[in-house]
Amino acid sequence: MQETARQIRGTMGKAIIRLKDIADKTGFSTNTVSLALRDSPRIPEATRAIIRQAADALNYLPNQIAKSLVSRETKTVGLVLTDITNPVLTRVAQAVQAGLAARGYGMLLATSSNQLEEEKRALALFRSRQVDGMLIYPTNHRLIEHLRVLRAAGYPIVLLVGDPDAGIDAVSIDERAGAHKAVKHLTDLGHRRIGLIDAANPLGNSEKREGYLKALAEAGIAFDTSLVVEPRGHDAAAGYFATDRLMQREDRPTALFAGNDSQAIGALSWARTHDIAVPEQFAVIGFDNIEFGQYASVPLSSVDYAVDRVTNLAIDRLMELIAAPDRLPPPTVTQIEPDLVVRRSTSAPNGKKES
Amino acid sequence: MQETARQIRGTMGKAIIRLKDIADKTGFSTNTVSLALRDSPRIPEATRAIIRQAADALNYLPNQIAKSLVSRETKTVGLVLTDITNPVLTRVAQAVQAGLAARGYGMLLATSSNQLEEEKRALALFRSRQVDGMLIYPTNHRLIEHLRVLRAAGYPIVLLVGDPDAGIDAVSIDERAGAHKAVKHLTDLGHRRIGLIDAANPLGNSEKREGYLKALAEAGIAFDTSLVVEPRGHDAAAGYFATDRLMQREDRPTALFAGNDSQAIGALSWARTHDIAVPEQFAVIGFDNIEFGQYASVPLSSVDYAVDRVTNLAIDRLMELIAAPDRLPPPTVTQIEPDLVVRRSTSAPNGKKES
Repeated sequence: MQETARQIRGTMGKAIIRLKDIADKTGFSTNTVSLALRDSPRIPEATRAIIRQAADALNYLPNQIAKSLVSRETKTVGLVLTDITNPVLTRVAQAVQAGLAARGYGMLLATSSNQLEEEKRALALFRSRQVDGMLIYPTNHRLIEHLRVLRAAGYPIVLLVGDPDAGIDAVSIDERAGAHKAVKHLTDLGHRRIGLIDAANPLGNSEKREGYLKALAEAGIAFDTSLVVEPRGHDAAAGYFATDRLMQREDRPTALFAGNDSQAIGALSWARTHDIAVPEQFAVIGFDNIEFGQYASVPLSSVDYAVDRVTNLAIDRLMELIAAPDRLPPPTVTQIEPDLVVRRSTSAPNGKKES
Repeated sequence: MQETARQIRGTMGKAIIRLKDIADKTGFSTNTVSLALRDSPRIPEATRAIIRQAADALNYLPNQIAKSLVSRETKTVGLVLTDITNPVLTRVAQAVQAGLAARGYGMLLATSSNQLEEEKRALALFRSRQVDGMLIYPTNHRLIEHLRVLRAAGYPIVLLVGDPDAGIDAVSIDERAGAHKAVKHLTDLGHRRIGLIDAANPLGNSEKREGYLKALAEAGIAFDTSLVVEPRGHDAAAGYFATDRLMQREDRPTALFAGNDSQAIGALSWARTHDIAVPEQFAVIGFDNIEFGQYASVPLSSVDYAVDRVTNLAIDRLMELIAAPDRLPPPTVTQIEPDLVVRRSTSAPNGKKES
């Protein structure tokens, strides 16, 4: 028994149980063992049962890695997230896993923590584990040359953010359009001094900022850079302190667009701590429509991240790429315009009715 | 170029660039290529540069899978979560990734969605990808025979929940002690009718319920099964509807212990919707101390899940197991007693001062 345990150990560590080990244990030929484990009717049922039991006892796992060196298919897809603590991204991960499982694929997940080096490490890890394809939130939507190289070399890759001109397949929320809707909602309500919490722009991702600027321009409002805070973090604490900085002025903004809901929730918390009434004195809108938004101190208006639509379209496209017989087809980019979800955290300034 | 692309394609899909391909491209021998890529001083620096460039151009990745068939080390650890949308579990995932990276390991992540079959599939996926070890939240803390078998066969495994008598290494929060602290906090405040939202017990995980029962018994309060709701989900919506069921009675509970903070946040939301004052009419305490708890409609009292302590101890132990030269050492189980975090959502019944 001990010898067996030592021998088996390494299916993860040091050795691999092969058909021959099962043959040795049962006295059948490796050919018979192989057929039995594939449930061939050429082997009597009783023999198959004996061999299956022996395989189980030896903790035999069909060696997919050895197989993958021949067939090159692992039925596994890798997903790279930027930030695993962002609730909307974990909802995506959950939906991707379910969608892949329905198509007979497993999912491996890694995160870049919004760092390009980590992203490259995750990609190398996935390549070394021979995933059949990858879904990726790149850290920087512009620094994707390493992904273009992989794409050009024929790797099935679908970005989950991306520009029409990225040269890589992408299915994403149209962040520019979503941010524009959020800020237009505020200008339509009559707000003129609108703060922006934007942790994405410093990372090179300017879509939300562009949407903010477009809505201001349409409303004839001059861009005031002092109304923009670019925190380092994406969480509620970052939103809290960014709001604290924004509100250290005489002519405080009457409204705020935060780049994600976690930061918006931090802003609501700042307002509660400082006895600022939301939305009457301070209207707040976020982005993503995470579950906790509706349970925040004031139910949060937001831009809905259409998780299921993005996920399903991205998986469908990845499956097309994986199935492509020879060269990859030209890339396609799908951008989904998100809907606004208006809850209690936004109203006209000073509680005025909508103009 | 096109031929090269087709040839390369399969490092993920159909073919693997080998040393010979680089040799063919550069005119050097495979032996020279091999030495150059290992940066051997036996090869002139200029030659090494040419070979490295060619390797990059061909998108060469040292074939870790082929290597792993020999060396059996992948420097990769697999983490199996039960629920990737639970914020405390994603904080663990983030901390595990950081802790592993500091030790030169990569992390692969999969989730079981609280289903045993999914858990087994994730384990098989990790084994087939030859991770060096695994960290696991088992779906059911008692149904771990499949994990015991792996352990007995020498697989490095550390559970992140677990009993002292599991027979497998484990580092975990002492959920029983944490639940006991939470409910004792409520009985100490003078509450006698204390609801319990418990999605874990139906999954076979009774630790939190046992802590609840122990605190009731110590306070001389008879267990009333009608004060227990066992929802199917772990999220805020599940907590909302569980609270709705709990509160459909004349003698409403004056306090609630929810098995996790998401559910507790759902309970706070129910109270807000129904104009029930928290904590005066209804005290609420959760478990995990997730970031959003402090930003909820009423800042939430909770039991702190010591993410960093659990994570670091678990990784340390896993590294010991991976480094074990032959047989695994006897299992050790570490249970960490969590601290209480009291915020505004708990007080004495009817706003009375603490007794």
